[in-house]
Amino acid sequence: MSKSTDELFKNVIAHAKEYGFVFQSSEIYDGLSAVYDYGQNGAELKNNIKTYWWKSMVQLNDNIVGIDSAIFMHPKIWKASGHVDGFSDPMIDNKDSKKRYRADQLLEDRIAKYDADGKTDKAEQLQLELDNAMKADDLNRLRELVVEHEIACPVSGTRNWTEVRQFNLMFSTQMGAVADDADTIYLRPETAQGIFVNYLNVQKTGRMKIPFGIAQIGKAFRNEVIARQFIIRMREFEQMEMQFFVRPGTQKEWFDKWKETRLQWHLALGTAPEKYRYHEHTKLAHYADAAYDIEFNFPFGFKEVEGIHSRTDFDLSQHQQFSGKKMQYFDPEVDPDTNKPYGNYVPYVIETSIGLDRMFLLTMINAYEEEDLSTEEKQDSRTVLRLHPCLAPVKAAIFPLTKKDGLPEKAREIMDTLKLDFNIQYEEKDAIGKRYRRQDAIGTPFCITVDHQTLEDNTVTIRHRDSMQQERVPADQLQKIIGDLVSWRNVLK
Amino acid sequence: MSKSTDELFKNVIAHAKEYGFVFQSSEIYDGLSAVYDYGQNGAELKNNIKTYWWKSMVQLNDNIVGIDSAIFMHPKIWKASGHVDGFSDPMIDNKDSKKRYRADQLLEDRIAKYDADGKTDKAEQLQLELDNAMKADDLNRLRELVVEHEIACPVSGTRNWTEVRQFNLMFSTQMGAVADDADTIYLRPETAQGIFVNYLNVQKTGRMKIPFGIAQIGKAFRNEVIARQFIIRMREFEQMEMQFFVRPGTQKEWFDKWKETRLQWHLALGTAPEKYRYHEHTKLAHYADAAYDIEFNFPFGFKEVEGIHSRTDFDLSQHQQFSGKKMQYFDPEVDPDTNKPYGNYVPYVIETSIGLDRMFLLTMINAYEEEDLSTEEKQDSRTVLRLHPCLAPVKAAIFPLTKKDGLPEKAREIMDTLKLDFNIQYEEKDAIGKRYRRQDAIGTPFCITVDHQTLEDNTVTIRHRDSMQQERVPADQLQKIIGDLVSWRNVLK
Repeated sequence: MSKSTDELFKNVIAHAKEYGFVFQSSEIYDGLSAVYDYGQNGAELKNNIKTYWWKSMVQLNDNIVGIDSAIFMHPKIWKASGHVDGFSDPMIDNKDSKKRYRADQLLEDRIAKYDADGKTDKAEQLQLELDNAMKADDLNRLRELVVEHEIACPVSGTRNWTEVRQFNLMFSTQMGAVADDADTIYLRPETAQGIFVNYLNVQKTGRMKIPFGIAQIGKAFRNEVIARQFIIRMREFEQMEMQFFVRPGTQKEWFDKWKETRLQWHLALGTAPEKYRYHEHTKLAHYADAAYDIEFNFPFGFKEVEGIHSRTDFDLSQHQQFSGKKMQYFDPEVDPDTNKPYGNYVPYVIETSIGLDRMFLLTMINAYEEEDLSTEEKQDSRTVLRLHPCLAPVKAAIFPLTKKDGLPEKAREIMDTLKLDFNIQYEEKDAIGKRYRRQDAIGTPFCITVDHQTLEDNTVTIRHRDSMQQERVPADQLQKIIGDLVSWRNVLK
Repeated sequence: MSKSTDELFKNVIAHAKEYGFVFQSSEIYDGLSAVYDYGQNGAELKNNIKTYWWKSMVQLNDNIVGIDSAIFMHPKIWKASGHVDGFSDPMIDNKDSKKRYRADQLLEDRIAKYDADGKTDKAEQLQLELDNAMKADDLNRLRELVVEHEIACPVSGTRNWTEVRQFNLMFSTQMGAVADDADTIYLRPETAQGIFVNYLNVQKTGRMKIPFGIAQIGKAFRNEVIARQFIIRMREFEQMEMQFFVRPGTQKEWFDKWKETRLQWHLALGTAPEKYRYHEHTKLAHYADAAYDIEFNFPFGFKEVEGIHSRTDFDLSQHQQFSGKKMQYFDPEVDPDTNKPYGNYVPYVIETSIGLDRMFLLTMINAYEEEDLSTEEKQDSRTVLRLHPCLAPVKAAIFPLTKKDGLPEKAREIMDTLKLDFNIQYEEKDAIGKRYRRQDAIGTPFCITVDHQTLEDNTVTIRHRDSMQQERVPADQLQKIIGDLVSWRNVLK
């Protein structure tokens, strides 16, 4: 990360706190590691991102429906999905400092160091050995590599290491009060399984015909060993996932369609296309036959925001096996090759999975600008969030020019005509210029000023966030002006 | 519960499953006790209830803002709030069956039995003794009462009881991977504390002036010993809470205002006023100086849906003490009695707290009707959900009369003009009458039929759910007709 991008990232984090977007969780108790709260503007922005996703998935596609499944699920589900046995990181403890590390992370850091020191060959060699050990789940080999490359604990400085062990990333808790009968259950590490276990119920009660999708927004939890980069990797986070059920053999065409559709969803917000790129997975998860990430160019480099995965029939087949319930779909359509209906099969699944918190951070970073407004006469600048108006937490702010002469009353009267439709903020403190800057900082697209002329002819000045241009318009046109700019129709296609 | 209301409740539960509103969680694995998932129509209905609450709280009140705080919080918070020490039920085990019970519940059941047997005096006497024991936290006395009243375990039939012990209702888990340093944290049992610990950050970054409120919608978790009555008492549930911060001494007037405002919120949906009532708490929680419930007449009797509580400065003062951070607000307004500013104080709090799942169930029950449509000629009936159009999961369904002659294409063309604004469903299977019934069952306010005349003059028939009346209207008026009926302006005031 170069100095200026590093600084940009820090400034965005500071801005997010200062303007009520993101607070460290439990801050008055000195915080809780890798957990964050969304403040008054953050909650609105987050809700707007959710609405955009939900509308484009569920409302626009008559073959996609949404559900809201619980965080608590039957523990067998995580056996079937592979999370009980496979969702873990290789951990190693330093015996002197008692600190625990991810063994692969220690090795990755060492590779980065080799690279930085110009030892490219060594870096490449270690990367290869690390990849092989991870692929083979060879914990002994990981330990050997730590030892061979003389990695020391950053705290104790010693190389006195334990064995490498697997550490499961799922949070567990005990449910039920009956002494002999309390069950260990897990906080879901992904929302996808909530869709798979409801697939039969939704398909039947919703009379869904393949291809069809089930969408869900919800919390997931992972006990990350090393959580970092602000809200990029949190222990409690939110996902927006859609599982699309298709006829086996058609997964490639649907995969391509969703890969394209999802990128368009991002670009419809007006983000510069060069800030996004696809990343193809070369090492596929055991359940996948194709996988692409959509990556965004964060200040610390391109990083995954969304994944599109062709999950085959792995999940449904596993649940069929573990639950004993048939997970089949009867497809009455006639196969042109055999002239018979396709009949019963376990559908294949294309998944689109986006991290809501990452999308939030992306949106903040992409919108954030420290704009130089200096002229020959004087230095000036402003911090402005150039959020898409559909996503802006506050759609318009309304200011009486002064606190007297009936202007506050008139401003509130106009506000009352707008507030049923939009999130509007009223502000009467400080000079107008200062009020503009505060609204710029939270991304409000419009500021409306009520002055003495308003009392005469019912016109107001409307000032546009991005251009800072002002124009005088009749107050009774405000609803249409604001409505047109913040309409979801501008981004839904 | 009389037979018919018992049947009504059962029918609503069956209907909720059959039409994709509520499924038992993890059903294919035989379910998870007291946890439920919302299906494709339930998720929409639930979202609409949330939107109604959020708009009426946050959008309509410029002194109320919303936040979204995490489920994971610093464990000290639950010490400060009293949940670690006080949020528990008195449990007793039968030594033969190994079954565990709530001691107070066993006694309540016995009181009900005395009442049913006409032993009113005995019932009253035991109620008094139970109340005293609970108030004094006297676990020994609870056990004595169980023994004295010869209560036997329903499973083993014996009276071989353990001591009574407190069982904490919070779910706990371990956070952090570092062996010596993993913290026990709790899943929040209420969303309110997430508001209290963010009060300073929100007040400062949002420049809030007293009186002001902070609203939040989110999940909470309680390890209920006996969870019952469908989604009335769940282990994972959702709350919509608003904490309103006021100057000490003004809490009574704000309490009265919110008590009234909240009832009006319920009634604005058109529910018959006699289905609601206030219930005043006579036994106040340790933090409260006034408390009312808003109760709804469920099939099993009046039951709390929402609580309005005057929580004094208890929570903020506790957090001030436990965190060491000042929780004060500086009030610059001049006190007319002293002619000096009110200055620094810890605000008092009025809370409105509504159970989203209960509100959901209330809405389903209130809307559900098995309507007799029989005429002299023939018997007929329908099941209709008379949901307020603002809350209906699907706003309109569009049907081509037949599957040929270009009617499906025309229907989809009309649908495309509407689906950007509303959740629309397309259906072409079965006779129109059958399609009407399916939409009645999920509460869709409008069914739009595209027939051969549509191809000539671009008019459609629109059929109203409640009256079942049909009228012919130009297709280009549909957006306004639907928009007017489902507008939030109809319920926001």
